[in-house]
Amino acid sequence: MSGVAIQSLPASTAQARPLAARLNVPMHDIALHRFPDGEIRVTAGPASPTTILYASLDQPNEKIVALLFAAEALRRNGARRLVLVAPYLCYMRQDTAFHEGEAVSQTVIGKLLAATVDRVVTVDAHLHRTPDIASVFPGIEADNLSAMPAIADALKTAELAPDTIVVGPDSESRPWVSELASRLGVPHDVASKTRRGDRSVDVRFSEPALFAGRPVLLVDDIVSSGGTLVACARALIDAGAAAIDAVIVHALFPADMTRTLSAAGIRSIRSTNSVPHPTNAIPLDGLLASALRNETRADRVVETRR
Amino acid sequence: MSGVAIQSLPASTAQARPLAARLNVPMHDIALHRFPDGEIRVTAGPASPTTILYASLDQPNEKIVALLFAAEALRRNGARRLVLVAPYLCYMRQDTAFHEGEAVSQTVIGKLLAATVDRVVTVDAHLHRTPDIASVFPGIEADNLSAMPAIADALKTAELAPDTIVVGPDSESRPWVSELASRLGVPHDVASKTRRGDRSVDVRFSEPALFAGRPVLLVDDIVSSGGTLVACARALIDAGAAAIDAVIVHALFPADMTRTLSAAGIRSIRSTNSVPHPTNAIPLDGLLASALRNETRADRVVETRR
Repeated sequence: MSGVAIQSLPASTAQARPLAARLNVPMHDIALHRFPDGEIRVTAGPASPTTILYASLDQPNEKIVALLFAAEALRRNGARRLVLVAPYLCYMRQDTAFHEGEAVSQTVIGKLLAATVDRVVTVDAHLHRTPDIASVFPGIEADNLSAMPAIADALKTAELAPDTIVVGPDSESRPWVSELASRLGVPHDVASKTRRGDRSVDVRFSEPALFAGRPVLLVDDIVSSGGTLVACARALIDAGAAAIDAVIVHALFPADMTRTLSAAGIRSIRSTNSVPHPTNAIPLDGLLASALRNETRADRVVETRR
Repeated sequence: MSGVAIQSLPASTAQARPLAARLNVPMHDIALHRFPDGEIRVTAGPASPTTILYASLDQPNEKIVALLFAAEALRRNGARRLVLVAPYLCYMRQDTAFHEGEAVSQTVIGKLLAATVDRVVTVDAHLHRTPDIASVFPGIEADNLSAMPAIADALKTAELAPDTIVVGPDSESRPWVSELASRLGVPHDVASKTRRGDRSVDVRFSEPALFAGRPVLLVDDIVSSGGTLVACARALIDAGAAAIDAVIVHALFPADMTRTLSAAGIRSIRSTNSVPHPTNAIPLDGLLASALRNETRADRVVETRR
């Protein structure tokens, strides 16, 4: 049994493979068979003492069950340390009961994963009322990486007009919007957003004159319904922006919605590969490899006890 | 807060309602909203100190996640005792690793549900290598009810020819086949079955002459692919059976497969309502009510502590 290996759910193999290559560890595909009655059968690869489970958790319910099954097989076959790499972490937005009787899904998923693995590595988890990622996963290690360095790297090699402004959709986006702008050496601004329903948002800028004749790089962490991006694009066009390109971390929207986004005046959309999507243009394997490098250190592997 | 109530996942409300009426307790629907990104939002009804969660677990993965969410909301809102009523219990057949690396799904689901509820009530769980239902659910109460009394009641009111033979597909079915035959006052026999693959089975009877000119009531606990029923029907027709009617506990097969079963010579198919299906003809609410009656006793409700 070698010290460290990556095992990936089927939906993540294309993203896991370059990570395994960077870390120079073996890569195994986890097989998932679907029976007609809706049950699944999971077959993991050979267990390593430290096994990195790569499973991005978009369209999550079946994947969560598959992950529990894979963990059982791996533990029983000798894995002492399981590290979940879930670049997209599901159910983080349901962090309180907004109405009587609603489940707090974040709590359930956090406890479930904390009881299943020893460490979670994710990217730009959408934490709103929760102070930090550690409080989502009681008793285990958890890292919430910023995708901004990876995005900045990808954009630096692309041609970015020097008078570009980086724009975020709301005040919550300010920390990472300012990080990205500073890495790119350009200014930034954030809108103020008022949500009026699941798909209706109102977006305003305090100084719209700022955008007249300038290219805008619109940044968002999660795009599901596309409503926020569309509202931002409209406000920026009204303000006279010369062109709007969008870059997003987690592309959860249906692939055919890109037409709606184009129609709203967005020239290009690039996403990280946290969620497999036609807009994927920014790989995360370098970022993830940095965070996982300590797992492959000889002393770490030997130390590991559960 | 009243003492006991039933809350049902959306897929089980039609089955839960008559149970609530029999037990004379309130019934609440659990709301399940599906977002386009594959996440669900679960909203439970008002929690009672004892809450009976009705959730049959066919097509199980989303329902398992929904159940964890509902339990969180109910516990937080004051439920002290959760009783899961799952007439069909998923993943019981994967009770060992048949090949290297396979997950033992039964263990995972058993532990997960045992960590979530205080009691599980199910019907004819397909236990093969597992000695009994208690060993599936460590540390909680568990009841594995036999559907045979309910099936016998339903068949008694139907017209059953007095020379009928009750037939089971394999030696494992003998205990419940003989129970049903004895309740109906007719003889029984079981086939010997050899499985040659997922959908191919070989079925033989030791005394085929027994069936010549007689009506047969074919009984099976789970029908998924239909292969066993078809093979049994063919062997019985070869033996000269006058007519074949089938009765099954858990109808997991696709609705349009009834044509294949008809073509194989099966005249009628009746199933219990453990899994909602066009062949449902045998209600389980009487059986379940008997098992749950103790939950509604005043002393039990007061005693409950977690």
